[in-house]
Amino acid sequence: MAKYVSIPESDWKAIESRMTVSVYQRSELILQQGQICKELFFLETGLLRYFTLHDGEEITKFFTDAPYTFTSQKSFTDKRPATESIQAIEPSAVWKLSFEDAHRLLRMPAWSEFIRKLIQEVQFYTENLLLEMQTETAEARYKKMLDRQSELVQRIPIKYLASYLGIAPQSLSRIRKQKF
Amino acid sequence: MAKYVSIPESDWKAIESRMTVSVYQRSELILQQGQICKELFFLETGLLRYFTLHDGEEITKFFTDAPYTFTSQKSFTDKRPATESIQAIEPSAVWKLSFEDAHRLLRMPAWSEFIRKLIQEVQFYTENLLLEMQTETAEARYKKMLDRQSELVQRIPIKYLASYLGIAPQSLSRIRKQKF
Repeated sequence: MAKYVSIPESDWKAIESRMTVSVYQRSELILQQGQICKELFFLETGLLRYFTLHDGEEITKFFTDAPYTFTSQKSFTDKRPATESIQAIEPSAVWKLSFEDAHRLLRMPAWSEFIRKLIQEVQFYTENLLLEMQTETAEARYKKMLDRQSELVQRIPIKYLASYLGIAPQSLSRIRKQKF
Repeated sequence: MAKYVSIPESDWKAIESRMTVSVYQRSELILQQGQICKELFFLETGLLRYFTLHDGEEITKFFTDAPYTFTSQKSFTDKRPATESIQAIEPSAVWKLSFEDAHRLLRMPAWSEFIRKLIQEVQFYTENLLLEMQTETAEARYKKMLDRQSELVQRIPIKYLASYLGIAPQSLSRIRKQKF
């Protein structure tokens, strides 16, 4: 969290004391579509994917690499059934903070600032993905990922990566065999 | 703003006293790509589009209908050149608040809550658009817009709507001639 704001030591202790940790195995769901997401999560180690069922098919929306703060934002905020699932695709250590605690902590200016900056960062990221979808082919988007996050790309199973790019796994295999 | 949080009358007066209003004509730019966006804006009446130049072509990212709060978020937050332009596509009345004032007001809990909820709403909207891009054809997305926002669709010039949907204006004309 030091990335965004400096949280005074005493405030940090108050936050930390409210958190519990769970470890998820590869393929385990942290949140299932249809459930209400009641927690704010901190991914300490591991890798996740967000996906949604659309016409019986799993569409991978994005990946979350550690360390990062995450939740199913709309479900968490409005207490509505989540329209997405969150799955560990590597063994993952996840800290949790309840909705009530996360909400109560908003009275703390440093926490409130952290949350605002976090939502903003997620917004920039999503907006950027949207623009790439509007302007680039799947192949160009894959090349960009390879340039910027080659280590991450190696860690993602090809079927999830293909679904994220919106193409068939076979097409992705073909693209991968090309020399860039 | 009442939509999100109730701001005490005295606080609201403090906010209002810092704002100035401008009127933009159809096609006028409120922000030009490359400039630093130094203001938070409130669209009182009118209609805007966000667009970005990509390989010499204007890509329409989204539309903002009144009443709404808007800015070029990344440029405004990080004081970096904007990667998008904001254009009035109807005569528009726009209230402005400087970065410094908007930032200073964050000390006010109701304002801080309003900003957090606003960023969150924009995030939900963007995420939803992204999912639609991943899962739906341009034709299906156009039909959805017609169902949900038919009045808005009538107000948008066809070339902007086509660019937003990622298709040629001719293709959109063909889709429009079909009966749904």
